[in-house]
Amino acid sequence: MSSDEPLTREKSWLSYTYEGRKGWKSLRALNLFRGVYHDVRRRLPYYWSDITDAWTYCVVASTIRMYFVNMLPAIAYTLDMYRRTGEFYGINEALFSSAMAAMIFSVLGAQPLTIVGITGLISLFNYTIYDIVTIYKPVIYPNFMCWTAIWAAIFHWIVAVCNLCDYMRYVTDFSSESFGAYVGIIYCIKGVEELVIEFTTHGNTAGFMSIIIAILYFLTIYGLERLGSSTIWKPWFRGLLADYAYVIGTIFWVGFSHIPGNLKATHVSFVPITRAFYPTQPRGWLIHFWELDAKWVFAALPFGFLVMLLFYYDHKVSSLTAQARQFPLKKPAGFHWDFFLLGCTTFLAGITGIPMPNGLAPVHTDSLTIYETSLRTISTSEGEGAEIRRPIVTATAVVEQRISHFLMGLLIIGTMTRPLLIVLHTMPAAVFAGVFFTVGWGSIESNGVLQKVIFLARENRFIQRDEPLLTVRRRKIALYIACQSVGVAATVAISQTIAAIGFPILIIALIPFRAWVMPRWFSAEELDVMDDLTANNSAVLASLGRPPRFPGQPDHERFGQERRYSEQRFGPARQRAGSIRR
Amino acid sequence: MSSDEPLTREKSWLSYTYEGRKGWKSLRALNLFRGVYHDVRRRLPYYWSDITDAWTYCVVASTIRMYFVNMLPAIAYTLDMYRRTGEFYGINEALFSSAMAAMIFSVLGAQPLTIVGITGLISLFNYTIYDIVTIYKPVIYPNFMCWTAIWAAIFHWIVAVCNLCDYMRYVTDFSSESFGAYVGIIYCIKGVEELVIEFTTHGNTAGFMSIIIAILYFLTIYGLERLGSSTIWKPWFRGLLADYAYVIGTIFWVGFSHIPGNLKATHVSFVPITRAFYPTQPRGWLIHFWELDAKWVFAALPFGFLVMLLFYYDHKVSSLTAQARQFPLKKPAGFHWDFFLLGCTTFLAGITGIPMPNGLAPVHTDSLTIYETSLRTISTSEGEGAEIRRPIVTATAVVEQRISHFLMGLLIIGTMTRPLLIVLHTMPAAVFAGVFFTVGWGSIESNGVLQKVIFLARENRFIQRDEPLLTVRRRKIALYIACQSVGVAATVAISQTIAAIGFPILIIALIPFRAWVMPRWFSAEELDVMDDLTANNSAVLASLGRPPRFPGQPDHERFGQERRYSEQRFGPARQRAGSIRR
Repeated sequence: MSSDEPLTREKSWLSYTYEGRKGWKSLRALNLFRGVYHDVRRRLPYYWSDITDAWTYCVVASTIRMYFVNMLPAIAYTLDMYRRTGEFYGINEALFSSAMAAMIFSVLGAQPLTIVGITGLISLFNYTIYDIVTIYKPVIYPNFMCWTAIWAAIFHWIVAVCNLCDYMRYVTDFSSESFGAYVGIIYCIKGVEELVIEFTTHGNTAGFMSIIIAILYFLTIYGLERLGSSTIWKPWFRGLLADYAYVIGTIFWVGFSHIPGNLKATHVSFVPITRAFYPTQPRGWLIHFWELDAKWVFAALPFGFLVMLLFYYDHKVSSLTAQARQFPLKKPAGFHWDFFLLGCTTFLAGITGIPMPNGLAPVHTDSLTIYETSLRTISTSEGEGAEIRRPIVTATAVVEQRISHFLMGLLIIGTMTRPLLIVLHTMPAAVFAGVFFTVGWGSIESNGVLQKVIFLARENRFIQRDEPLLTVRRRKIALYIACQSVGVAATVAISQTIAAIGFPILIIALIPFRAWVMPRWFSAEELDVMDDLTANNSAVLASLGRPPRFPGQPDHERFGQERRYSEQRFGPARQRAGSIRR
Repeated sequence: MSSDEPLTREKSWLSYTYEGRKGWKSLRALNLFRGVYHDVRRRLPYYWSDITDAWTYCVVASTIRMYFVNMLPAIAYTLDMYRRTGEFYGINEALFSSAMAAMIFSVLGAQPLTIVGITGLISLFNYTIYDIVTIYKPVIYPNFMCWTAIWAAIFHWIVAVCNLCDYMRYVTDFSSESFGAYVGIIYCIKGVEELVIEFTTHGNTAGFMSIIIAILYFLTIYGLERLGSSTIWKPWFRGLLADYAYVIGTIFWVGFSHIPGNLKATHVSFVPITRAFYPTQPRGWLIHFWELDAKWVFAALPFGFLVMLLFYYDHKVSSLTAQARQFPLKKPAGFHWDFFLLGCTTFLAGITGIPMPNGLAPVHTDSLTIYETSLRTISTSEGEGAEIRRPIVTATAVVEQRISHFLMGLLIIGTMTRPLLIVLHTMPAAVFAGVFFTVGWGSIESNGVLQKVIFLARENRFIQRDEPLLTVRRRKIALYIACQSVGVAATVAISQTIAAIGFPILIIALIPFRAWVMPRWFSAEELDVMDDLTANNSAVLASLGRPPRFPGQPDHERFGQERRYSEQRFGPARQRAGSIRR
């Protein structure tokens, strides 16, 4: 995909390192702009190929799929945020934010595969701040949010300039699995809340009908995605069903809610819309941030810091998984530059009063990956025709380009127009409860925590003898899960209180806990099996300085034996629509 | 289990045959009472052991499980029948019928493993006759039904005495799979009807809530049964969950419908009950059958014949599958005697005005079978620790006795008392819609028709090379499925009309079609692979004369290669609660 010679590419990739540097130059934080500079230098030569590589059907399919996978959860989170921020953030704000992020990151981003948009966590953030601010002075909420974003943007720029993104290489699956489980649980709770609200605002009949739509919507998408990983029908057809599961499910169940008769007569609630291109509240797009008292401006500072912490973790983990080892990527990453850019979008979101966007799940990379399901024959010494046949999925290439991201942005801008807003208005809120369940359960089902629990519950005799987890004592696995569960439980618990905005601190605290406390309880061999670097792709590590060094675990190449074992047996886990989206 | 010496047993088992008989003695229909006599002679020596063998925990568990698995569908069918026969057949009639059948067959039956009770098909029969009779003279319905039963009883006795049950050995999976698919579809339709009625009688709110209960009830039972065949937890525990899936699901969802608040406030419909031990209508238990005009008495004759045809097929197929080869049975069968007895219960049901009971699914045998999940290790030449580990289920023994059947009957009698009727009245009708879905889907999912469709849809390269179906040309498999599907479609279609009572003719017509027409279209080898004798257990064939002889397929031992292949790989299919119940 690149026209560079391998040697040159190799050289430019590896130039960002701190090996061999002496004095102040060896301190990452003092080498201002070094990471950003190297990101740009490393990535720029590929820019033209990001456009020329895009002329395949795959890009069209990816655009359509990503539009749905991005918009449906965004609207789901916005419904929640709309109600809980005194209707300050509505659909128009959400669309504006998604469109702005898509435009900026597809054109300027160093990692065009990382889709940026609205997450449920920023919704949680926004309404918790609303709850806090309304205790004191409700009217300042817009200005206060604006200053939170301005401070957050400043912190983003400091982090990017001081190369602090480098520390993301210490993130391992220990914390990112916990985070995934936390997000999954929160989303399932949100789905239930959405349905409860239907009961209180539109009555029992609407409530019960919404439950039916939500459950069946979830089952439709889950079933279609399961079908995609079966061996029924031709690979292209079952792949199509799975890839467009959201599209199919949404069109069907939206239509269902409009069938004349008992269904139409049950007045369920629909997505609330307002005048196209105007803010939901009667205000201009520019927030009058200069009208806020100085004391409130500084009160917003810690909130801004917390937003930065959340994005530092969430955006980075999303980028890392979008560029994980399972994807055969050929173009390098650029974390510092992208985090700088994220500071800019945060700033713009702040002064226009829209929700701050950040990195989403790796579905985009998945949608651009060319998968091949091939036959794996295992010879046996007896019976069954002397062989066992199994499907194995391999990722052969990724169409690395920025056009699909850009086109998706254009589609979102199109959605901001009146005719398409009216289409949005036909969608019952119940479908979005279903979206919450799909996204939430996707994050829980594939989660390493649950997988380890199932391993412990499984009858020992049916476990393959070469399963790496068998080399770890069972109570050590239980201790490992317990550590993660305590983290998840604590984070879920505070998310239900007004201290919810503190959750990024808890999640990020798991990183030093993993680096310094865990090695005292577990041997290096045990951690090698159970844990894995989240940044495990060399294209990614090029932007993060160099591979991390953990106390007691000198060789990062030995990490993640359990994951590799599972990939070797079943192929890489597909990132379907329902998979981890934060 | 028996005190006989093997030689004597062998001799007495094989004494019922027509080999070597000459003249009128070789014609089965002319050897009156010969089958009945041999059944009694063959089975009687085991009677005492049927009681002494019963002192195990397994019998208690089986009693509880069978009580639920028998009563829940029986009530579901009765709800439907109650509404559609002008409230003539109610819960009391259903309980009385189930109790009577259980008492008679557990004490006197030659095959105490075959549970006899109320099926959905007799409900279909009863209300179709109601629809026909009310065109002419609604008041004669009770007497007309009584005469239908009397004629049916007479035909039963003729069939038993003339040894016509012997022809059941020609039943193959070709027709019994079609029958299973037909029943599954009818039950799913019934489930939907149950929910539609909730909308029309109790309003939309109750309707929507009922849908939720039905769907989640189905998912609960389905999920618990799936768990039972996984390798999670200890075998006894997951077995417990699966065996008591109905108990757990019913208690939970009945409780759910009574949770105070929105759920309790939604007035869904409950099982209608009347005064304990009295008929639902103001009448005595004895039908005044002598008060019917002679013309109506004879009009009932063809209906009686159709009932006998239905029972001939349905009761026998149920008995056959309850004694299929997968169960390691040690005691012989007795079809003629049991069919004679079924004539008696049909007669009693007729003169007391209760639904006529007949044979149910093989869940009883399953609940008495001692299964062992063992490890199967397949050595491989490469990778995966040089072996693949798989669970395989084997049936090691069956606790063949009549006590569990008898105790279940006592429990049903207990249910007829006022306190337990009130417990029944707490159950929402929605749960029974869920029962319909569970029973219906159980019959469809495991059905050979669907399995062959999936085989055709599956990508060829992932099919094991020793799969017997691969030796049959694809269009031959398609033709085979098409033959079955036409039969199923025709039967389902007429079941929706007033000609519904004719469906046994269609089903039974599949047997000669299989014996005479199919061998012209398919080679013997193809039929050997795709079809199997339903009567495939030698303990069963002892009561049916001798193995059947199909034109062009001389060797009955070669039948059913596909089924045997699947059993050899995965072990016998468990008969969970949801499996085929007609």
